[in-house]
Amino acid sequence: MEMFLVNARTGFLGLADEKLPYVVPLNFVYYNRAIYIHGAAHGRKIDIIGRNSNACFTVSEDLGTLTDPVPAKTDTSYMSVMLFGHIQIVTDLNEATSAMQEMLNKYVPGYYHSPLSKSHVEKYRSSLGSRTAVLKLVPESISAKLNEVNEAAKFYPGKTALDKSR
Amino acid sequence: MEMFLVNARTGFLGLADEKLPYVVPLNFVYYNRAIYIHGAAHGRKIDIIGRNSNACFTVSEDLGTLTDPVPAKTDTSYMSVMLFGHIQIVTDLNEATSAMQEMLNKYVPGYYHSPLSKSHVEKYRSSLGSRTAVLKLVPESISAKLNEVNEAAKFYPGKTALDKSR
Repeated sequence: MEMFLVNARTGFLGLADEKLPYVVPLNFVYYNRAIYIHGAAHGRKIDIIGRNSNACFTVSEDLGTLTDPVPAKTDTSYMSVMLFGHIQIVTDLNEATSAMQEMLNKYVPGYYHSPLSKSHVEKYRSSLGSRTAVLKLVPESISAKLNEVNEAAKFYPGKTALDKSR
Repeated sequence: MEMFLVNARTGFLGLADEKLPYVVPLNFVYYNRAIYIHGAAHGRKIDIIGRNSNACFTVSEDLGTLTDPVPAKTDTSYMSVMLFGHIQIVTDLNEATSAMQEMLNKYVPGYYHSPLSKSHVEKYRSSLGSRTAVLKLVPESISAKLNEVNEAAKFYPGKTALDKSR
């Protein structure tokens, strides 16, 4: 499951604005048993978090459609992980810098020739009017689901219900 | 935007269980200006909907990472659509059958040699103890975001900040 979270590129952060759900796609790193994200320090996401920090972070990978002679039993093979907990702004500069470094290692590996400096993170976090923030979700519970690929059942273009495989 | 929703394989349904957000990945069809999903007629998702039918359905496609000499400006190119509205169980059998047929057309095109029968949908919906349900989200508002691909900025393995392109 850790490898799955380490490799997935997009996670979906769910928040609750009173009774209204809000789901936003985000890049993230799973690091030190927490989900770290990075984004604008203003906007609906941050506003909701200020009122209700409960969060659900869901990552899913589609592994293909599984056919069945019974139409209602058509299924999807997938791996998904849901992490539940409270989300908070990372205020510790060392932690924010480490998380940002992990983001760069994940999304642009090898691109920069020197490690990220704390002053760079600090600059983007505060001097420029808190334009960006690093946020952290420490999961209080995790739910993982794997609906395994059944190779014989897997759909491919041109497959029909009359094919021997299924 | 319609083409984007028609082609995307996975959407993320966000619900609010009192203050607790819940985000579940789902196959879906965008049909007749509504999102249709199909799933178990029992479980947490249906329980929450019974108490609070407000929903957010988010679909996102990652189009690549965009590099920048300034680390904090590393960005992602993506297309995403968020649909907000109330989600409800489809009780009309004709509508449920049409939606299921659209699901089969999308996920297993050409697999079945005859159209889905209403009796098949009815059987899976009621006789077997309401094991499955077709749900529908009619969007009351839609928010679409496109962060365009800038080919020169796009990251590729081996690219470094010293490369001429950016």
